[in-house]
Amino acid sequence: MALSAPVVIAGGAAVGGKKEGAGPLRERFDTISEDSYFGQKSWEKAESVMLRQCFQLLCQKTETPANKLDFILSGDLQSQCTGSAFALRDAAVPYLGLYGACSTMGESLALGAMLIDGGAAERVCAMTCSHFCSAERQFRLPLEYGGQRTPTAQWTATAAGAVLLRKGSGCVRITHVTPGKIVDAGITDANNMGAAMAPAAWDTLRAHFKDTGREGSYYDAVITGDLGHFGHDILADLAHEEGMTFPNIFTDCGILLYSAKTQDVHSGGSGCGCSASVFAGHILKCLQEGMWHRVLFAPTGALMSTVTSQQGESIPGICHAIAIEAAEET
Amino acid sequence: MALSAPVVIAGGAAVGGKKEGAGPLRERFDTISEDSYFGQKSWEKAESVMLRQCFQLLCQKTETPANKLDFILSGDLQSQCTGSAFALRDAAVPYLGLYGACSTMGESLALGAMLIDGGAAERVCAMTCSHFCSAERQFRLPLEYGGQRTPTAQWTATAAGAVLLRKGSGCVRITHVTPGKIVDAGITDANNMGAAMAPAAWDTLRAHFKDTGREGSYYDAVITGDLGHFGHDILADLAHEEGMTFPNIFTDCGILLYSAKTQDVHSGGSGCGCSASVFAGHILKCLQEGMWHRVLFAPTGALMSTVTSQQGESIPGICHAIAIEAAEET
Repeated sequence: MALSAPVVIAGGAAVGGKKEGAGPLRERFDTISEDSYFGQKSWEKAESVMLRQCFQLLCQKTETPANKLDFILSGDLQSQCTGSAFALRDAAVPYLGLYGACSTMGESLALGAMLIDGGAAERVCAMTCSHFCSAERQFRLPLEYGGQRTPTAQWTATAAGAVLLRKGSGCVRITHVTPGKIVDAGITDANNMGAAMAPAAWDTLRAHFKDTGREGSYYDAVITGDLGHFGHDILADLAHEEGMTFPNIFTDCGILLYSAKTQDVHSGGSGCGCSASVFAGHILKCLQEGMWHRVLFAPTGALMSTVTSQQGESIPGICHAIAIEAAEET
Repeated sequence: MALSAPVVIAGGAAVGGKKEGAGPLRERFDTISEDSYFGQKSWEKAESVMLRQCFQLLCQKTETPANKLDFILSGDLQSQCTGSAFALRDAAVPYLGLYGACSTMGESLALGAMLIDGGAAERVCAMTCSHFCSAERQFRLPLEYGGQRTPTAQWTATAAGAVLLRKGSGCVRITHVTPGKIVDAGITDANNMGAAMAPAAWDTLRAHFKDTGREGSYYDAVITGDLGHFGHDILADLAHEEGMTFPNIFTDCGILLYSAKTQDVHSGGSGCGCSASVFAGHILKCLQEGMWHRVLFAPTGALMSTVTSQQGESIPGICHAIAIEAAEET
C-alpha cells in the first residue's frame, strides 16, 4: 500500500559484535564490541545491553530524547522476546512488542510507517537485534559442543539496528509498505532457512510489484532480509519461473554482512540483527549519501521454534517489503 | 489517545477447553472442547488448532471471508509465537505477529484500531490464545510431575478469542486506546504474576484517566487482563495510595473466567487466551446486549521467560487499555 504522505527515516544506529566488525560493513557500524558478552554474565543479558546501547545511540544521534517517542516497536528471537523487553524496560515509552522472527525490522518499519501516516504517532523507534550465542543456545546446540554446520546453514548476527521514523520533511522517506502473508513451502530442514523463507520473499515481492505496477528495475537495489546465498539463488529461480527478470541489483542482507571468502559463515548471515543492522548502518547511509535513490527493503523471517521442528513441522516463512526513496536534492 | 473516528467491533468468537466450559462463563463460549488435545498429538498443535477454529468461527459469524481482511494481528505465549504462526499459516492474509505476553489481546486491539483509524486497513482480525498444557510445559514443570501450586499461582486458560475490527457504523466501538509502557516493580517470583503486572496495570489506567480526564466511574466496568485475585487486590492498593477510588465495577478477566469456590485455580485465570476469550465471549456480548455501555478493557502481560527467571531477573509487566462504548440505540 502507498502511504498517503511519505514517512521520514530521520536517522539510524547500528551496533555489532566482533565478527560483524571483521566484515565488509565494519565502517558502517556506530559501535563494534570486541566482547561478545558486552560486559554481562550471560549472552541473553548481552543481547539486551547491545539493543539498549543501540537505542541510546539512536536517541543521541537524532537528538531525540526517549520521552519524545510515541512508540517503540521491537522484538527479537529470544523466547518470549525478552531481548527487547529487558532492553527497554526502563525506557518509559509505550512499547509494542513484535514477533516476526528475522523479518522483525520489516514489520516494525511497516507498522511504524502506517501508525505515523495514519496520525497515531509522530515519532516511532523501530528496532530489533539478535546475538549469535543466545540464538545458538535458543535454537540449536550448546556452543561448547562444536557441532559441524551444514553448507546451507547461516550465521546469526550479533547485531542490533534501530531507526527513528517521523512525520515531516526529510531526505530519506518510506513511500510504500507491503506487509507479507505467511507462506509455508514444506521445508523441514532447520539448517536451511533460506529455502524456507525464499517462497515468502517471492510472494511479497510479487505482491509489491503487482500493487505498485513497478518492475525490479525501478529500484537501485532490492535487498531481502537474510536469505543468504542459497536462499537468494532460490528466490532468483522462483522469479525466473514466473518470467521475471532478476537483475543483479537484487541482493540480501545475509550476503552483504559477511565476507563469503574469509569469514566461514557458510550461506551467509541471519537473525533479526542482520537485516536491522545492515539497514540502519549501511542501506540508510547509501540513501543518505546519494549512492541510491530508490530501495526496496524486504526482511524475511522463519516462523518456527525448536518445538515445532522436533514435532516434525515444516517451517512457515514471512517477508515484509518497505519501499524507500531519497530526494535527489533537498 | 482518542481515535479520530470510533472503530467498530463487528463481532467476536471464543473457544475454550473443558475447565473453561465448567466455569461461570460456559454459555459465553462459541465452542467448548472436552478434549484438551483438540484431536491433535501434541498440546502445541492443539493450541494452533484451537486458534484456527476460533478464527474460522469469527469469519463465519461475521460473514467475512478471510480474503476480505487487511491484516491479522496475533501472538501467543509459545516460544517464537508458533501457536499463532502455525494456526494462520494457510490463512493467506497479511500477518503481523505480536508479542505482549498475556496483554496480547490489548495490543492487537490497540494496533488494529489505530491502523483502521489511520486508513491503513478497513478490516482487521485481532486475536490470541493460550493452552494450559503447552504453557505449563513452556514455563513451568512437566504436568506429570504434579508440582504443588502456590496460593498466588494462576491457571493458564485453554482458550482463544478473536474479534473483527472494521470501519463504518456499528453498535460497539473502540473510542480510545492507551498503549502501555513496560513497568518493572522488581518482583522475581514467577508464581506471582499478579504482583508483577499490577504496577503496569496501574501505570496504564492512571495514564488513561489522566489523558481522557475521566474517573473510573465513567465506565460501567473496568476490566484488567489477568491480574487474578491477588493482583487485583494489589492494583486496588496502588490506586488507593494515590487517592483514587477503586469502585467494585473494577474487575479482572482472571477473576471472571473461573469459579474461585469450585475450580481450584488459586489466584484465578491467566494466559493470552484468558482476557481474549473473556473479551470476545463475554465482555463484547455485555456491550452488544446493552448490559454495559462503557467498558475499559486493560489486558496485562508479564514479559519474562524461563531463561530470565533462571538468570535471577525480575519480571517486567505491561498493560494496554482500550475504551469501548456501545450506542444506547442503533
